[in-house]
Amino acid sequence: MVKIGIIGAGRIGKLHTENICYNVKRAEVVAIADIHMTDEIKRWAESLGITRCYKDYRKILAEKDIDAVLICSSTNTHAPISLEAIQASKHVFCEKPVDLKIDKIMEVIDALKGKKLKYQVGFNRRFDHNFRTIRQAVEKGEIGDPHIMKITSRDPAPPSIDYVKVSGGLFLDMTIHDFDMARYLVNSDVEEVYARGDVLIDEEIGKVGDIDTALISMKMENGTLAVIDNSRKAAYGYDQRAEVFGSRGMLSTSNDKPSTAILSNEKGTMGEKPLYFFLERYMESFRDEMTSFIDSIVNDEPVAVGVYDGLKSVMIGMAAKKSIEEGRPIKILEIEI
Amino acid sequence: MVKIGIIGAGRIGKLHTENICYNVKRAEVVAIADIHMTDEIKRWAESLGITRCYKDYRKILAEKDIDAVLICSSTNTHAPISLEAIQASKHVFCEKPVDLKIDKIMEVIDALKGKKLKYQVGFNRRFDHNFRTIRQAVEKGEIGDPHIMKITSRDPAPPSIDYVKVSGGLFLDMTIHDFDMARYLVNSDVEEVYARGDVLIDEEIGKVGDIDTALISMKMENGTLAVIDNSRKAAYGYDQRAEVFGSRGMLSTSNDKPSTAILSNEKGTMGEKPLYFFLERYMESFRDEMTSFIDSIVNDEPVAVGVYDGLKSVMIGMAAKKSIEEGRPIKILEIEI
Amino acid sequence: MVKIGIIGAGRIGKLHTENICYNVKRAEVVAIADIHMTDEIKRWAESLGITRCYKDYRKILAEKDIDAVLICSSTNTHAPISLEAIQASKHVFCEKPVDLKIDKIMEVIDALKGKKLKYQVGFNRRFDHNFRTIRQAVEKGEIGDPHIMKITSRDPAPPSIDYVKVSGGLFLDMTIHDFDMARYLVNSDVEEVYARGDVLIDEEIGKVGDIDTALISMKMENGTLAVIDNSRKAAYGYDQRAEVFGSRGMLSTSNDKPSTAILSNEKGTMGEKPLYFFLERYMESFRDEMTSFIDSIVNDEPVAVGVYDGLKSVMIGMAAKKSIEEGRPIKILEIEI
Amino acid sequence: MVKIGIIGAGRIGKLHTENICYNVKRAEVVAIADIHMTDEIKRWAESLGITRCYKDYRKILAEKDIDAVLICSSTNTHAPISLEAIQASKHVFCEKPVDLKIDKIMEVIDALKGKKLKYQVGFNRRFDHNFRTIRQAVEKGEIGDPHIMKITSRDPAPPSIDYVKVSGGLFLDMTIHDFDMARYLVNSDVEEVYARGDVLIDEEIGKVGDIDTALISMKMENGTLAVIDNSRKAAYGYDQRAEVFGSRGMLSTSNDKPSTAILSNEKGTMGEKPLYFFLERYMESFRDEMTSFIDSIVNDEPVAVGVYDGLKSVMIGMAAKKSIEEGRPIKILEIEI
Repeated sequence: MVKIGIIGAGRIGKLHTENICYNVKRAEVVAIADIHMTDEIKRWAESLGITRCYKDYRKILAEKDIDAVLICSSTNTHAPISLEAIQASKHVFCEKPVDLKIDKIMEVIDALKGKKLKYQVGFNRRFDHNFRTIRQAVEKGEIGDPHIMKITSRDPAPPSIDYVKVSGGLFLDMTIHDFDMARYLVNSDVEEVYARGDVLIDEEIGKVGDIDTALISMKMENGTLAVIDNSRKAAYGYDQRAEVFGSRGMLSTSNDKPSTAILSNEKGTMGEKPLYFFLERYMESFRDEMTSFIDSIVNDEPVAVGVYDGLKSVMIGMAAKKSIEEGRPIKILEIEI
Repeated sequence: MVKIGIIGAGRIGKLHTENICYNVKRAEVVAIADIHMTDEIKRWAESLGITRCYKDYRKILAEKDIDAVLICSSTNTHAPISLEAIQASKHVFCEKPVDLKIDKIMEVIDALKGKKLKYQVGFNRRFDHNFRTIRQAVEKGEIGDPHIMKITSRDPAPPSIDYVKVSGGLFLDMTIHDFDMARYLVNSDVEEVYARGDVLIDEEIGKVGDIDTALISMKMENGTLAVIDNSRKAAYGYDQRAEVFGSRGMLSTSNDKPSTAILSNEKGTMGEKPLYFFLERYMESFRDEMTSFIDSIVNDEPVAVGVYDGLKSVMIGMAAKKSIEEGRPIKILEIEI
Repeated sequence: MVKIGIIGAGRIGKLHTENICYNVKRAEVVAIADIHMTDEIKRWAESLGITRCYKDYRKILAEKDIDAVLICSSTNTHAPISLEAIQASKHVFCEKPVDLKIDKIMEVIDALKGKKLKYQVGFNRRFDHNFRTIRQAVEKGEIGDPHIMKITSRDPAPPSIDYVKVSGGLFLDMTIHDFDMARYLVNSDVEEVYARGDVLIDEEIGKVGDIDTALISMKMENGTLAVIDNSRKAAYGYDQRAEVFGSRGMLSTSNDKPSTAILSNEKGTMGEKPLYFFLERYMESFRDEMTSFIDSIVNDEPVAVGVYDGLKSVMIGMAAKKSIEEGRPIKILEIEI
Repeated sequence: MVKIGIIGAGRIGKLHTENICYNVKRAEVVAIADIHMTDEIKRWAESLGITRCYKDYRKILAEKDIDAVLICSSTNTHAPISLEAIQASKHVFCEKPVDLKIDKIMEVIDALKGKKLKYQVGFNRRFDHNFRTIRQAVEKGEIGDPHIMKITSRDPAPPSIDYVKVSGGLFLDMTIHDFDMARYLVNSDVEEVYARGDVLIDEEIGKVGDIDTALISMKMENGTLAVIDNSRKAAYGYDQRAEVFGSRGMLSTSNDKPSTAILSNEKGTMGEKPLYFFLERYMESFRDEMTSFIDSIVNDEPVAVGVYDGLKSVMIGMAAKKSIEEGRPIKILEIEI
């Protein structure tokens, strides 16, 4: 049994905890730390049989019986806690992004050198049933050489302005998942990025220096021409689709829905909206990424999504930002490590 | 060029005429007869270059240069005009049903014996792109032996009560197409019929002795279990679907629509209603059945849908009627020829 | 917390147990009985924290702290154990069918009289997301008065001949779910049944007196004309669809699939097969039916599927059998209670 | 009746001629000119009742009874013949592109000034049922303000290298339709273009200086971010889709297919490939554009697609070319008129 400490008991920390308790074998959560440890969190932990509840995550790092930690605290703490956890010889699962700054991620990469520790980054969508089916088909050569890739990623509603302010911007907060998906689907790195972005949904987002709508075209190293389109607000809900077109065929996925029911009446034929948001849409992928993390530890195998993937997606995001600032395509090589 | 005379210039007569003029090769309409020949019909005929317009169809039968006639007059005249046309050595395309009475159809069958004349019945749906695809796949063995067949046939709106009165009833007016379709799709005759029918849409239909909703189960001679469901009124429009399930797979078709457009909004995802009614839905099939009739004449080949098919569908309709009257399954053999 | 004893640790017993442990709140499994209690079962139970493992289910019935039992043993034991459990004042969740004989079910009904016990029957499909969506729409009047209902239920592969022998026959083993679904979807009882059945898949099934393909038409008490089609073997896998057509529209559902991925290549556009069989397809419904059972106990509310539903579906199955034997439609009233 | 002369009796010239003869009211083709007038063309013309067949199109321009000409000759002749036809006071329908050079198109624009002549350009896709449905919904405000537009346009097979050489390149030969579609769908001009192109299908195409795969992102004047993706070879055939996403919803279209049939078997669920190529896919749109042209003349109304639209699409194509050459986004304003 892999013994796990959770750092950060917010929404995503709780989700991972419950998944480990109910749905992941060979792992158990033994301790939880949260800078705002409350009675509510304690009661919830107790109901899951978890008795060690701390305010200070360092207590978790100090406990010898804990094998691995999940870093689910706020983004700016990901890298520093990662460094301390590595120092304490804990395996680490770190929510995305590792950090908004490249040098901080590089410090984590350096710290991992020579260590026999697993370090997985929370790009859960790689474990999604739809996207995984595309990747597997691409790997098997079912569509031949990839030529064109289209990723659509639109949220049902924008986050609060307070969140937007500290989010790192659309590209590092939202598109970062799509950048990782692009790399994953065709198993290739990005070579060059050209991005356009605008404020079409909420002027407040513009006032704090961010955008809410974007179209990013990319050249992948394997020659694939790729495009990602983003919106912070789709009237019909969470839109998560991908299409990879190659020399021998195409793979495309559509949105998951609550049911397959179609209502036909005098207005037409009506289906349901997509599953509401990432918690509903990617529920299974969260379970599968955690199982994969535990398997990596138990079987001493490489993690499915490593710190290098965390670095790359941030670099692409920075290239996209720079592309908008300078109004020209940016090569990933132009981003300094 | 096959020279054609049209008998009956109502909606379907005009449709066939225009199809021959515009879309069927090696045929031309040279004369039109209608018991209510009007100036409007004459002007329409003239615009198509047709100058011979008669009140009496016998004038058409008397003209030596006319090779074939299309009988598009009212149902009760189909059989008598067929007999006269055969007598006059004309090839015949007769709208369905040949007659509502079996002995009248038998007279036509007898009259055709020993004659080298083509006689095609207007079961246009056999030429529909969707249903033909099923039939061809069944023939090629793509689904193995057929086990279960489901035909859904629902109209967008019931006909007028005046029409219902003389229609011969739901089974001989509407379901007759579906009976023919059942025989066509699995290339087998019907052995036994069990029908249920009800008046669920319009009480007036019940008052004139007809039904507006029906469910007919059938055992085909090749062992397929089949079901047809009918309604005179589908809120979402004309519903024409079929499904054949066999030992190796299933073929199913859905409705044709005006466009593939889907509107996604806060209510869900919405597609258009099916094409409105038989004129829109089966437009191409009307052209193809006429081309097939002309080809049969020109190439001296058997017609695709003969008088025997016209007979069989009426016999199944009678068995369905009898099944409702007697509350039991009826073998086709019980229907006297 | 509702304390639960499991009777029968086969596939379905284990599934319910794990669901309660992982996914159902306010309930815990405290004891398990199986006539063939093995070390394997004990280890499995222990891994779930369940320490009381018995060969004799009577031990469970004798334990005062146990509130409810799940009867997951073989069909012929359902009724007798139900009676004993009721006698022991346990709430009961009983897998379907309650019994293959009506008088046995009536004994259970009688035993429940005057008792404040919950008795739920395992018609899990009532909790399926697709079918529930139809039922809710029908209840809200979204399709007006139901006129026609079509239920397709086909298995990916027939069970073993040994199972077929003791199954009670297609209608009581397989179609029983569809009979219950018919009653559920339009919220009405069945009035009359006409069934056709055949052996089209495996002659061995015929040799032991059963059928493998069936088409059942029914008249519901509310006037709906309904049809169920069954096959023990669909080449493309588990086929579970329903369609309810009414005066104002239609609701239809299609099969759930492992992913939404479509592969387009020189052969056409290809989607995946449906989820393999009932364990995959109805996974969520098993969880939801158990949650519903526990809720009924905790909130002292009526169960969602009661013993009366268990009785009715068996009566319809018997009417279907009788219909095939006598070659005529059978009214449910003709089945003696 | 509008009397029409056809200039150029190749594939598209014949198609328009037959459409006018069979399917367009208030118009008749009275003369045909082709620089390679053959007996085959003469026989075909005669079968349609057209007796005036010339080698020299100037004979058509000289004939007083001819109201309008269709210029269906090779691309390099479009502009010069347009000028002569305008001089001869004929209405003109000109196949796309008007010319590959902007100054030539400007000459046509100048020649039209002050004339009461109709001049329509052959962007037939504007009359397509799918795309028209999107445009109409956008106009009605059904999706609110457009934010993101995606156009996919892929051919089933590349043209011959000989054709590629004189085609003007992918952007002016193939994408030109998509540029026009982009302007049409959101009713806005293009402001800026960034294009990437590559040779991924056939090296021979690269050797003659063209590309076969492209991804073009555009900023529209109304703020919409748009992307077009092109391939000269899709294994599954002709792929023509569009999606417009706006503040209140999204409209998307999929490909038309020969039938709605789905084959389900042990491999999955399979639909047919899209209609083969533009003649099959856009058959109806060719009829409707011609009807629209005739209506413009008869009712003295503006044409649906004018010379200005012809100009704009060429300018966008040139901007796309320049973008690839210079590796930067190009504003349409940078293209000199």
